[in-house]
Amino acid sequence: MDADEFRTRGRQMVDYVADYLDTIDSRRPLPDVTPGYLRELIPSTAPDRGENFDTVMADLDRVIMPGVTHWHSPQFHAYFPAANSFPALLGDILSGGLGAIGFTWASNPACTELEVAMMDWLGKMLQLPNDFLYSESEKGGGIIQSSSSESALMALLCARTEVIRQQQDNNQHLTKGQVLDKLVAYTSIESHSCIERAAMTGLVTIRALPSDENGALRGATLEKAVQDDLDKELIPFYLGASIGTTTRCTFDNLKELGPVCNKHKIWMHIDAAYAGSACICPEFRYILDGVEHAKSLAFNPHKWMQVNHDCTAMWVKDKELIEGAFHIDYYILRQSNHGVRMPDFRHWQIPFGRRFRSLKLWFVLRSFGVSGLQALIRKDISLAKQFERFVQSDPRFEIVAEVVLGLVCFRLKGDNSRNERLNYLIHKDGRIHMTPSKVKDMYFLRFAICSTRTGAADVAFAWDIVREMADKVTLENGSVCYNEFIDHD
Amino acid sequence: MDADEFRTRGRQMVDYVADYLDTIDSRRPLPDVTPGYLRELIPSTAPDRGENFDTVMADLDRVIMPGVTHWHSPQFHAYFPAANSFPALLGDILSGGLGAIGFTWASNPACTELEVAMMDWLGKMLQLPNDFLYSESEKGGGIIQSSSSESALMALLCARTEVIRQQQDNNQHLTKGQVLDKLVAYTSIESHSCIERAAMTGLVTIRALPSDENGALRGATLEKAVQDDLDKELIPFYLGASIGTTTRCTFDNLKELGPVCNKHKIWMHIDAAYAGSACICPEFRYILDGVEHAKSLAFNPHKWMQVNHDCTAMWVKDKELIEGAFHIDYYILRQSNHGVRMPDFRHWQIPFGRRFRSLKLWFVLRSFGVSGLQALIRKDISLAKQFERFVQSDPRFEIVAEVVLGLVCFRLKGDNSRNERLNYLIHKDGRIHMTPSKVKDMYFLRFAICSTRTGAADVAFAWDIVREMADKVTLENGSVCYNEFIDHD
Repeated sequence: MDADEFRTRGRQMVDYVADYLDTIDSRRPLPDVTPGYLRELIPSTAPDRGENFDTVMADLDRVIMPGVTHWHSPQFHAYFPAANSFPALLGDILSGGLGAIGFTWASNPACTELEVAMMDWLGKMLQLPNDFLYSESEKGGGIIQSSSSESALMALLCARTEVIRQQQDNNQHLTKGQVLDKLVAYTSIESHSCIERAAMTGLVTIRALPSDENGALRGATLEKAVQDDLDKELIPFYLGASIGTTTRCTFDNLKELGPVCNKHKIWMHIDAAYAGSACICPEFRYILDGVEHAKSLAFNPHKWMQVNHDCTAMWVKDKELIEGAFHIDYYILRQSNHGVRMPDFRHWQIPFGRRFRSLKLWFVLRSFGVSGLQALIRKDISLAKQFERFVQSDPRFEIVAEVVLGLVCFRLKGDNSRNERLNYLIHKDGRIHMTPSKVKDMYFLRFAICSTRTGAADVAFAWDIVREMADKVTLENGSVCYNEFIDHD
Repeated sequence: MDADEFRTRGRQMVDYVADYLDTIDSRRPLPDVTPGYLRELIPSTAPDRGENFDTVMADLDRVIMPGVTHWHSPQFHAYFPAANSFPALLGDILSGGLGAIGFTWASNPACTELEVAMMDWLGKMLQLPNDFLYSESEKGGGIIQSSSSESALMALLCARTEVIRQQQDNNQHLTKGQVLDKLVAYTSIESHSCIERAAMTGLVTIRALPSDENGALRGATLEKAVQDDLDKELIPFYLGASIGTTTRCTFDNLKELGPVCNKHKIWMHIDAAYAGSACICPEFRYILDGVEHAKSLAFNPHKWMQVNHDCTAMWVKDKELIEGAFHIDYYILRQSNHGVRMPDFRHWQIPFGRRFRSLKLWFVLRSFGVSGLQALIRKDISLAKQFERFVQSDPRFEIVAEVVLGLVCFRLKGDNSRNERLNYLIHKDGRIHMTPSKVKDMYFLRFAICSTRTGAADVAFAWDIVREMADKVTLENGSVCYNEFIDHD
């Protein structure tokens, strides 16, 4: 395929995507396939000779589309949103077209420099303390990571490197393993599994601490756990705090946790994967209060800020700690930066190479403007509030966590089994898609506003289905428990 | 921006990319900017109101292009190639447009299933042992990772989990830290820094073993190192072997290393980042001989197989070890796969979410066909051979490593300083771009065939410049050492 054919095929693909998104409300959110569906639809080996691209295009509707989960359907209310905007798509086309890998400054200066600039734009939008900004501090700065998981891991590895260094400075006879056996990380029982996974990767003990009645991890809970561990001569070193948990969008109390962390020299990392985007609205910025105590934080513009996957914004207060944690001086890359200090992002992340992801962020921020992005956040929250009112209007239901942002967690009053049944019926019906969750043995349903295409009528439509299925559960006397869908993965 | 504007803007961006690549030979490969160039070209905060996209497009030539390193210029010969093909770009447009995140099978069945199919296609193209294929084995399979770094790390983490489990099974009183302090990983002094970095992340000791006169890590060298460590009651557990090292494209002797690893229960991971692509040509497949001893391997179609970044193909012989190493059962995701076993790739990687990267791989394999991809590999190798003959024709120069694939490592006979000077002059001249390297205190230049646009005339052009600059070095009597460019990062 030469450049001229690409001009034609590119237009065709752009139109295919535009058509798909223009008509996505005609598709059920979940595909009707069973595992293994695809294998018989394509050959078992790659073709020896190249095929005309028409045959590839023709296969999209035959092979791919039947198996796609339509995250941007207005009836998709599962997990959390995945951003998908046209300006971001344009940024990715350009990033791919340039195909310039920015592992060092010299390998693609524009890639590093636009990322530095965008991280400051974004940090200011979130009103982050100056400590996190390139332009306002000596040591602070941000990076685009692939995921909140990678960010939580990088933060934990930095903290681990630092605490091992300190311990060995105090006692030169200590081995890494002896220090490691004493390290303790903390998080809430409600936090995303990526925090626990970071600890498993780092090979450190992690304690999942109980949340309060509002789902928040509190300072006193952490203080007590830390004291218990200090009494056992263990070494507390890392807290994975959450702003907007995945289970039910609750908020750890940073203002209480921060001082506890400072007192005990614990690295506080904030995972604000979903909720961080809301902090660009002044009225929601309070949920980040206490961020000044954090050593690092991350949120996902690729969730709720119109930037397509992947784009996790991560900031650190001391970039020397992240660069130094795994600095390997690699000869092939040793080139002068002419005296001005620009970050070599390969030291900040797990992969070595990197795409030019700041382009899509730049395109989105300029195309929507801050006020445009705020309006979209506010629209989603108002839709969640609408759904909350529907739930509250039906005495069979209860709300499980305060609806602060775009997620409504609710359940039928009574046994979990009734709610498992309700979830099963909604899933089987297939007109809307939600995912359930469970906290402290309480099973509930999650209704998330995900697609930018979702409007008030879609929320009403979803509620009608929930009510209809609840009627069935009620008719069944609430006594039948069908676990067909859940629990046998 | 609505779908209709996206149709227009998308065409505009596709044309921008086509124009860029059509005329890339008119650009010097390296940009003429100094660190910090971009900051003054854009505002210091995001705009409050959205801008018309025309203003964004206009800024590409003003802000971005002056700072881009043109990896696809026919005069770009640095590092290793970064793939950039039109079918892959189309695949990424579709992946972005669907915007469906495939962390579990249910979250986007097509994403998981096409990836499973493509990893088998690719594995068969490389003639991998059946143990690595989904369709031919119970336990084998592959995944698209973000990078060779992530692959080497995941392999090391799996091996670490497994050896700790075994050690603790033998002695329940052993702590993780006590095992960790005894673990030893191995690699060659010539391997990519990602192996050492994986060990640093895993917090295990790593030994960089000497290579032989051909740059290969040999079985006897490993055996001796392992014996030394066993004598010290340490626990050898991981070998990061390389096929096509970054420094000078040398090849570890897998056929010797494999049996040593088997004997001592060491996990052999093969990093074939660059060279793996050549194994689709029968005449180069021999470089992977011995792969049957490996527990895992990875190579980068995003380097030399026309698939845009990121796309690292990684296979494991026992997927239970990779899934089990960090399996966290997350309630929100616990959905039935209806009995058929499909991988949940979130367990195989560091990030949680994932893009639909198999689309671009599928598009590339079908558009080029295996024979088309083979032809491109062979073209690059023949161009490297052409450059090698140029070097050999000039008695001032010597070849530093056998030219097997698309990389020529060479130097002026004599002191490193003359070659540092040569590199400096070539860099300052700016018409071509190369990066130097150093092995065993020997400094040399690397000439890599990178762009698919590079042809015989470009190779002759590059050689003329190298000769011209070598003349200058010779005239300077070879006594002046200018380290301005190198060594003060």
